[in-house]
Amino acid sequence: MSHDTTIRLDVSRVFSDAVGEHGLDEKALEALAPAAAAAHEAVEGARGTGMLGWTELPKSTEAVERSREVWAKVGDGIEDLVVFGIGGSALGTTCVATALLHPMHNHLSREARGGAPRIWVLDNIDPDWIAAHLDFIDPAKTVFSVVSKSGTTAETMSQFLIARKMLEDRLGPDYSRHVVCTTDPEGGKLRKIAADEGFETLPVPQGVGGRFSVLSPVGIFPAVATGVDVETLLAGAAAMDERCRVADMWKNPALLQAAILHALGAMGVNIHVMLPYSQALRDYADWYKQLLAESLGKRSARDGSVVHAGPTPAKALGVTDQHSQIQLYTEGPFDKLITVIEVEKFSGSLPLPSVYEGIEGVSYLGGHTLADLMAAECAGTQVALEQGGRPFNVLTVPEVNARVLGELFAWAEMAIAYGGELLNIDAFDQPGVEAGKRAAYALMGRKGFEELRAELEGRAAPSPKHLL
Amino acid sequence: MSHDTTIRLDVSRVFSDAVGEHGLDEKALEALAPAAAAAHEAVEGARGTGMLGWTELPKSTEAVERSREVWAKVGDGIEDLVVFGIGGSALGTTCVATALLHPMHNHLSREARGGAPRIWVLDNIDPDWIAAHLDFIDPAKTVFSVVSKSGTTAETMSQFLIARKMLEDRLGPDYSRHVVCTTDPEGGKLRKIAADEGFETLPVPQGVGGRFSVLSPVGIFPAVATGVDVETLLAGAAAMDERCRVADMWKNPALLQAAILHALGAMGVNIHVMLPYSQALRDYADWYKQLLAESLGKRSARDGSVVHAGPTPAKALGVTDQHSQIQLYTEGPFDKLITVIEVEKFSGSLPLPSVYEGIEGVSYLGGHTLADLMAAECAGTQVALEQGGRPFNVLTVPEVNARVLGELFAWAEMAIAYGGELLNIDAFDQPGVEAGKRAAYALMGRKGFEELRAELEGRAAPSPKHLL
Repeated sequence: MSHDTTIRLDVSRVFSDAVGEHGLDEKALEALAPAAAAAHEAVEGARGTGMLGWTELPKSTEAVERSREVWAKVGDGIEDLVVFGIGGSALGTTCVATALLHPMHNHLSREARGGAPRIWVLDNIDPDWIAAHLDFIDPAKTVFSVVSKSGTTAETMSQFLIARKMLEDRLGPDYSRHVVCTTDPEGGKLRKIAADEGFETLPVPQGVGGRFSVLSPVGIFPAVATGVDVETLLAGAAAMDERCRVADMWKNPALLQAAILHALGAMGVNIHVMLPYSQALRDYADWYKQLLAESLGKRSARDGSVVHAGPTPAKALGVTDQHSQIQLYTEGPFDKLITVIEVEKFSGSLPLPSVYEGIEGVSYLGGHTLADLMAAECAGTQVALEQGGRPFNVLTVPEVNARVLGELFAWAEMAIAYGGELLNIDAFDQPGVEAGKRAAYALMGRKGFEELRAELEGRAAPSPKHLL
Repeated sequence: MSHDTTIRLDVSRVFSDAVGEHGLDEKALEALAPAAAAAHEAVEGARGTGMLGWTELPKSTEAVERSREVWAKVGDGIEDLVVFGIGGSALGTTCVATALLHPMHNHLSREARGGAPRIWVLDNIDPDWIAAHLDFIDPAKTVFSVVSKSGTTAETMSQFLIARKMLEDRLGPDYSRHVVCTTDPEGGKLRKIAADEGFETLPVPQGVGGRFSVLSPVGIFPAVATGVDVETLLAGAAAMDERCRVADMWKNPALLQAAILHALGAMGVNIHVMLPYSQALRDYADWYKQLLAESLGKRSARDGSVVHAGPTPAKALGVTDQHSQIQLYTEGPFDKLITVIEVEKFSGSLPLPSVYEGIEGVSYLGGHTLADLMAAECAGTQVALEQGGRPFNVLTVPEVNARVLGELFAWAEMAIAYGGELLNIDAFDQPGVEAGKRAAYALMGRKGFEELRAELEGRAAPSPKHLL
């Protein structure tokens, strides 16, 4: 592929040759090559099966076609698209919106938005926050997109119940055009509700878990509705997927990333920082946080052994967090791998006028652009990390666009799938969220959880000494 | 104090009695009591001196008075307040705005905002993001608040240069009413520029570093401009400060927090998660991230020994990140202290209507409120963490308001000051950010950095093997 249009990975500064003793010994990484090749083989062999259904999404046209059909039916005259979803039902959509829509999209006039609706991804249930949004929108000009594979996600279904009543109260019984459900194609509570109510539906395909669903209708429908170039997004993902068909980790950027994170993990590195130098990519780091944390954060390996595995993802933003996190990153413990995402070109560059010529410390800025300063600071951070002996790698993206974002999604998904194999864990389940869900069900009085409720209510109060 | 109006700390579940072997042995914490008392004494002894000038802010009326004066002069007819600042010049302001303004503040009409301006805190220099904001606002109805103690912060001064030209081009030479500078009261480049140009100024008082500046004019001026009840904010901080005058860590919630984080650090815990169950407090976690990372992330102790200290802050948001980070928190490595912030009361509660009575898994929600669900999930997460053997503590806040936010600011600032003493490091400098700044200056051609530039440009290119 041409290096002008695709993302590139530079791993030179993860090695001890560049950053000293806390870097990776390149020979130790080489020793992982067979394990990496085996991880690759396992993922290749499972493509499209079991919970690897998401590997088929980049080449499928179904999500786009179905999303277009549904939006054509419900989108006419719609001013606001409200997404009810949480976790994997929200993070990809937010990331696509902040990366690819105008930075002020929700503040622009309908005309300036090219007729696209505003988009509100409501991935929390804070009642004041939800009420403020529902007060703001006009239900007659709103589509509520309800995203829950099971149809029993408590947060999402609660939001939907509130919105449904609002629609009924304001629009009367004929509100079905204002709700679209993205859910299991065959069963589940939301599927049944949609059938009973006559809502349009979109499928979450088999083998696509929430955190791997951004290129399914979960992410594609809101992207279509807001005018994102979804074909190019998918093409970017497909191109990266193609780069990942190679078992040689030195040719496969996702496999190399997985091997590096794994090898550093063996050296005690337990934090992976995603550090994009781009305001538009700020939510990519949040999307990645879920992907990494839920996929690799596991108690048990497949063989049943207790491993308590999983690097903790950290989000930082360039240049903003140079004034917040970089002090720690350059001087604190050697417990991090930092992945810098560098953007080569912005749409504009914003020239810095030459004024205050006599004022040293300000005057040198004149004649440059804001894009120059962004690039210089990104390079400066890399120098500081290198001098501090901190292992990091750099993902260079030509610019933030749909193709690049598709590549970034597929790169991280493949890296995490390989990472699961290297740890010999199931990267596609999330057993650790059940305990909290069950306790919440019990406290909310859901049927079948009566015993747990009694147990929770009978717990001993803390000692007064521990209450300040 | 009454427990109904103040924040409370419950530390019962950081101990091994509650969470098992990865919790703190209460005796080990007791053994820290003398060190904690000494840390307290050191902070008490240094109050108001050196870099502890910020301890005086809660009781000072100066920031409020001066901010009111300045806003009275410049605020008339102003629709947008644009804050140019980064790090400590931005994070506190953002936190105050998201915590205390209406959740849709920037989308409301001027009337619904009570005449207050919209507020835009531009703490990055991504040119596309900056351009989008500058296109959006009307310079004739905008005040640009430029916040830089030194007046040489490259990002902030660059933004200011662009805005100044915009003002000059659009309004002619009479633009000085549209710029307010918050900077060193005595010297610095921005002080000089403000004097030359006739801009209003506000002081960053002596002994107040950026990350401890939220209760100085840095945070108070934008709060005043947007109609925040700043007196109550300061009163909350003063009340917490008063609770921190006690050397007994079992009576001082900030000292106990510092001792717990320190003791867990000795057990290998290197991550501190701030997990507010409140959309309004989401940016408090970001503000805290800077405070912790820059203050405690240090290479050297005061005695010159190399320590590479500092827990890494992580931000999570309840309930949102239950669907992103909780899997890792309950099953992954035992490397975290989690501080849950629980909110007892929201302004509204949003009832969940009883529909779909026959659909198990949905029907139990009916008759509850969204606030009930929020509370049940917060409790559920605590149950899951406890069952997973994960040490955590809980900060309960009666509701999110100005008083509580003031308490939260002072609590964290004092905890971090004590934490610096416990580590015997300087919590108020940030030497690790210099290397990156110097490299950026060199690449931007600033005078005096020619040699460094030559050095940087002469660096060897990475091996082709390391470029994918």
